[in-house]
Amino acid sequence: MTPPIYHRVALIGLGLIASSMAHAMKQGGLAAEIVGYAKTEETRRIALEIGICDRVCATAAEAVQGADLVVLAVPVGAMAGIAAEIGPHLMQGACVTDVGSVKQAVIDAVSPHIPAGVAFVPAHPLAGTEHSGPRSGFATLFRNRWCLLTPTETSTPEATARLRALWEAMGSNVDEMDAPHHDLVLAVVSHTPHLIAYTMVGVADHLRRVSNSEVIKYSASGFRDFTRIAASDPTMWRDVFLTNKEATLDILGRFTEELFMLQRAIRMGDGEQLHAYFTRTRAIRRSIIEAGQDTAAPDFGRVAPVAAVKAGE
Amino acid sequence: MTPPIYHRVALIGLGLIASSMAHAMKQGGLAAEIVGYAKTEETRRIALEIGICDRVCATAAEAVQGADLVVLAVPVGAMAGIAAEIGPHLMQGACVTDVGSVKQAVIDAVSPHIPAGVAFVPAHPLAGTEHSGPRSGFATLFRNRWCLLTPTETSTPEATARLRALWEAMGSNVDEMDAPHHDLVLAVVSHTPHLIAYTMVGVADHLRRVSNSEVIKYSASGFRDFTRIAASDPTMWRDVFLTNKEATLDILGRFTEELFMLQRAIRMGDGEQLHAYFTRTRAIRRSIIEAGQDTAAPDFGRVAPVAAVKAGE
Repeated sequence: MTPPIYHRVALIGLGLIASSMAHAMKQGGLAAEIVGYAKTEETRRIALEIGICDRVCATAAEAVQGADLVVLAVPVGAMAGIAAEIGPHLMQGACVTDVGSVKQAVIDAVSPHIPAGVAFVPAHPLAGTEHSGPRSGFATLFRNRWCLLTPTETSTPEATARLRALWEAMGSNVDEMDAPHHDLVLAVVSHTPHLIAYTMVGVADHLRRVSNSEVIKYSASGFRDFTRIAASDPTMWRDVFLTNKEATLDILGRFTEELFMLQRAIRMGDGEQLHAYFTRTRAIRRSIIEAGQDTAAPDFGRVAPVAAVKAGE
Repeated sequence: MTPPIYHRVALIGLGLIASSMAHAMKQGGLAAEIVGYAKTEETRRIALEIGICDRVCATAAEAVQGADLVVLAVPVGAMAGIAAEIGPHLMQGACVTDVGSVKQAVIDAVSPHIPAGVAFVPAHPLAGTEHSGPRSGFATLFRNRWCLLTPTETSTPEATARLRALWEAMGSNVDEMDAPHHDLVLAVVSHTPHLIAYTMVGVADHLRRVSNSEVIKYSASGFRDFTRIAASDPTMWRDVFLTNKEATLDILGRFTEELFMLQRAIRMGDGEQLHAYFTRTRAIRRSIIEAGQDTAAPDFGRVAPVAAVKAGE
């Protein structure tokens, strides 16, 4: 086994991403020691119980002491407060990173608190599930998923290269880009789709003419795919939209325009336009499968729930 | 083995649904003979080659002769033409059914061509994948999925009960409702979500500032879920929107209102409203899993594509 990449990793926040990093780092022997901090005692207790941390601390300031890598894995809106707290306690030569879904806002919130002699290298692993909390993590979450680094003025080449090595060792493909570009790309591939899914699920929920139980009963016809992403962590997503406001509103505007165009085609009975549109979108799915970013198995290769299989037999 | 439910089943159209019915009927011994018709010679040839039909015919009129069950499995827009063609050739005592995603429009298109002594029992299996064509079918597609029957004036109780028995034997749960209610429910759980997914994929495709390759590369962050349903059959979906126009436009209107409300909350920085909304939608996902209509496994239990696993190891 190769020597660990970091001597002591401090995980600040112990949700899906941090706990998956812990599993992956332990599996690969990538950190000699993992120290954890979470806001609630309950989460810290679980972290010890399931063994994702070697030690937990009751404050973030304590957790970062002597750490050569500090991972900020809290909702984007909580980054500034945490950064202010840990700033004075960071070790000289340490690297601070984060796993937030928005990058410019995190840079603005964290950078002022990074002392001289510490590198800040923002990161965003494009991986996740609809589950959250310390028990939701697993070692293979990042495998073949992208991790985007958006280096700042304080990111030394050495600190960036070492963090890249960690992500690659956890199975990720790593790309670098600037923060504003990251935020725009993510508004397209993630933030706007999530908002739309939340909205569609909300509409179904409000609809009194169609009873709630019917919406749930018959969800297999398309709706259930939306509910998966609309089940993601509410605090995390609130912060994403509040901090990537401009790009999200821009893409939402384009989405609405396009939706009105298709709505008009339906109203006017323009079958040709609809058919041409639906044919184009099919090709994009094919590209995603060819790029290895999804399974080609029908219906995501969904396995019927146990109860379901029994009922069907 | 119990005796077959039908003596001769004529499948008019040999796509995903008809080929899955053929597999399920063969597996369960539910039809003594399966006769198929498809528009292209190529599809008819494949149907014989993979054994989903015992015989194929070059015309629909020929295929329905002597059949006690005729299944119209063509896009909704093609139903009227097929019904007009087969009407004079239907056997006395036969049952005609369909598998269209819209029911009132199919009833309007088909009913005038149903002769006295023939029952028309419209049906809609809420099952499918993003794949299409005769090779895409599989026997378990309908297992634990709902099939909705919307009986008409010509649906005798006997004909409806027998068709229900067939769907139940193929693994479905069967419900009955009237056609307008069906069309509204489906506009919520299926038609509008599909249109929205098509639109979001279209927006991403048009976006020139974010290159197409980035959208595909980083799709795992949410977008790829949309591309699956936006990869469904373009002809089928064109017809759905053209024939369930009123209900789809109604639900789209509600969706847009709701989206504007959330968009405004983002613009105004109203975090409380966003958080409350996202918390509500999470509960709906839980209900769907409890109802056995989806898997609780994270990320749909997606299995990483083979190429992906290799790359990650």
